[in-house]
Amino acid sequence: MITFLSDYGPGDEYVGVVEGVIARIAPGVRVIHLGHGVPPQDVRTGARRLARALPYTPAGVHLAVVDPGVGGERRAVAVRCGERWLVGPDNGLLAPAAERFGIDEIVDVGASEWRLEPVSATFHGRDVFGPVAAHLALGETPAGPRLDALVPLPALPADKVHVVEVDGFGNLITDGRLPSVPVRVGGHEVAVGRTFADVPPGALVIYEDSAGDVAIARNGGSAAALLGLRAGDELELT
Amino acid sequence: MITFLSDYGPGDEYVGVVEGVIARIAPGVRVIHLGHGVPPQDVRTGARRLARALPYTPAGVHLAVVDPGVGGERRAVAVRCGERWLVGPDNGLLAPAAERFGIDEIVDVGASEWRLEPVSATFHGRDVFGPVAAHLALGETPAGPRLDALVPLPALPADKVHVVEVDGFGNLITDGRLPSVPVRVGGHEVAVGRTFADVPPGALVIYEDSAGDVAIARNGGSAAALLGLRAGDELELT
Amino acid sequence: MITFLSDYGPGDEYVGVVEGVIARIAPGVRVIHLGHGVPPQDVRTGARRLARALPYTPAGVHLAVVDPGVGGERRAVAVRCGERWLVGPDNGLLAPAAERFGIDEIVDVGASEWRLEPVSATFHGRDVFGPVAAHLALGETPAGPRLDALVPLPALPADKVHVVEVDGFGNLITDGRLPSVPVRVGGHEVAVGRTFADVPPGALVIYEDSAGDVAIARNGGSAAALLGLRAGDELELT
Repeated sequence: MITFLSDYGPGDEYVGVVEGVIARIAPGVRVIHLGHGVPPQDVRTGARRLARALPYTPAGVHLAVVDPGVGGERRAVAVRCGERWLVGPDNGLLAPAAERFGIDEIVDVGASEWRLEPVSATFHGRDVFGPVAAHLALGETPAGPRLDALVPLPALPADKVHVVEVDGFGNLITDGRLPSVPVRVGGHEVAVGRTFADVPPGALVIYEDSAGDVAIARNGGSAAALLGLRAGDELELT
Repeated sequence: MITFLSDYGPGDEYVGVVEGVIARIAPGVRVIHLGHGVPPQDVRTGARRLARALPYTPAGVHLAVVDPGVGGERRAVAVRCGERWLVGPDNGLLAPAAERFGIDEIVDVGASEWRLEPVSATFHGRDVFGPVAAHLALGETPAGPRLDALVPLPALPADKVHVVEVDGFGNLITDGRLPSVPVRVGGHEVAVGRTFADVPPGALVIYEDSAGDVAIARNGGSAAALLGLRAGDELELT
Repeated sequence: MITFLSDYGPGDEYVGVVEGVIARIAPGVRVIHLGHGVPPQDVRTGARRLARALPYTPAGVHLAVVDPGVGGERRAVAVRCGERWLVGPDNGLLAPAAERFGIDEIVDVGASEWRLEPVSATFHGRDVFGPVAAHLALGETPAGPRLDALVPLPALPADKVHVVEVDGFGNLITDGRLPSVPVRVGGHEVAVGRTFADVPPGALVIYEDSAGDVAIARNGGSAAALLGLRAGDELELT
């Protein structure tokens, strides 16, 4: 089984082309799509979604492609974590998920013999990562230089609170703590609650989400649109 | 086989997480996605799409999640209709489809032993509905209180015509009847036709759609955007 | 194996309904989605995506539906190209892909015995093309009039450069050649490069994309939005 997450968008043919490449190499292997609507080139959001999703999927090969440096110097890696293989660019995207499972082995697959030749400059999902994932799903062993560590995600300053992700509903996921009393953000009152349904339609609520993160939602609307905030922005709770 | 419809959006990881949970419990079961672009928390649109889609799918387990009351008082149900099981929140979402097939049994699965523990307050697709659907797809029997009836969809006033759904093209699906002569909506002329191709590009046409509903479309554009209408709005045809 | 590309949108239930119809007829056949976000009724973009994607997929049945003339006079066809069958409307959508593989046989399946009756006026993906694809995937032989040629895509004037497609990132794919020195488009400088990463964030680059076409991208943004261009527009490079 292969899972696949990317910023290719849900509408273009790119996702299907990668699945087609996989199906040519490994016809019987199922592909579960973990969403292809990561905001373009937003490695941080992709890394968070991947780390959050994988504990709920079967062990297998986990392909992820959010790759602003494609065609440049960044490495392409396959990371073994117990029974799982994570495959993608070495730009921080895989690091949080891999660390959650524990890293056993990192292979630089940028020059893998499994690549489709000629390798394009801009579509390594098709030419490098997809073929590598397919061969790994068949139980084959990857060749390539062994690496000591993954490139980590850049840290956010610990003395500030940030929006770390905006989901498809416009909910703001933060790196802050749950307050005990109502707060204000950008002039709007935010109630402390357990879920959307705890506040009237149109009102804001801060709560611990299903992944244990503190999030801000608007009942029946988009908190991101109301507050004009996006991933990476500092969040001032007063 | 499991079908899955929701308002989770086609781009986030939520849909894939639910499929991952299903694949861990029931690895050999296929999942057919019936669209995850239901407008957020729009139970009426979700209910209509589900009822319209299911007669065309194989019998199996039919998972649907549009759940504005998640974490609140609403019940979680599995509804047996002959060979089919419908699974989702008891908020009107399942009712039209279930009534179309005929209801044989309703089980309250909100406290099912199949749930993932701990159950989150906001992601019952992952923690409750997905696991229940997976176990049902394996042919297991659900435990839980038996219920007499589903919560119905709220009725729309019968003496008015409404937009009951806006599809992804911006076509307006209505609860009205097909007129025999051209009508006007919001100052625009609407021809009576059989299909988009019956009017010039940019023009409006009212027709009976492939599901037998009366709809208004704009050839090559969005009738909803042109007329500024959304699901639930009253429609004045003059 | 069936691949499926359309302009049905990634969010509605239409795609899943077609897959459901296929699964009823051919339960064991896998469906690989090649993207359903073709701009509505944009036959040219659909044709390009299909022709570009198919060489990377396994041979099988290739269903494609971008069908502005549905319910009108256009023919419905199944086209055999060696081991592959292409299925869809005869409006230019299939022609580039079919010509790439070489056409062995064209069957008019508009009145196929495999259709779902009654055939709707607007949803031939469900009622005609999906069932035909499913039966072909089972190895059955299509009945219907044999045709001599497909309707081609209308040619664009060869003495001009055009945007021939806008992808989901807002990259502009053109029918031009790669310049050797920087150019200007709509008042913006465009560097010549190999990939996004060759220019600073926000800057424009012209490059040969992974399919060998000359494209214009904006690092970290949408070239289409910045320049106000869409598929079919003439492109003035100065």
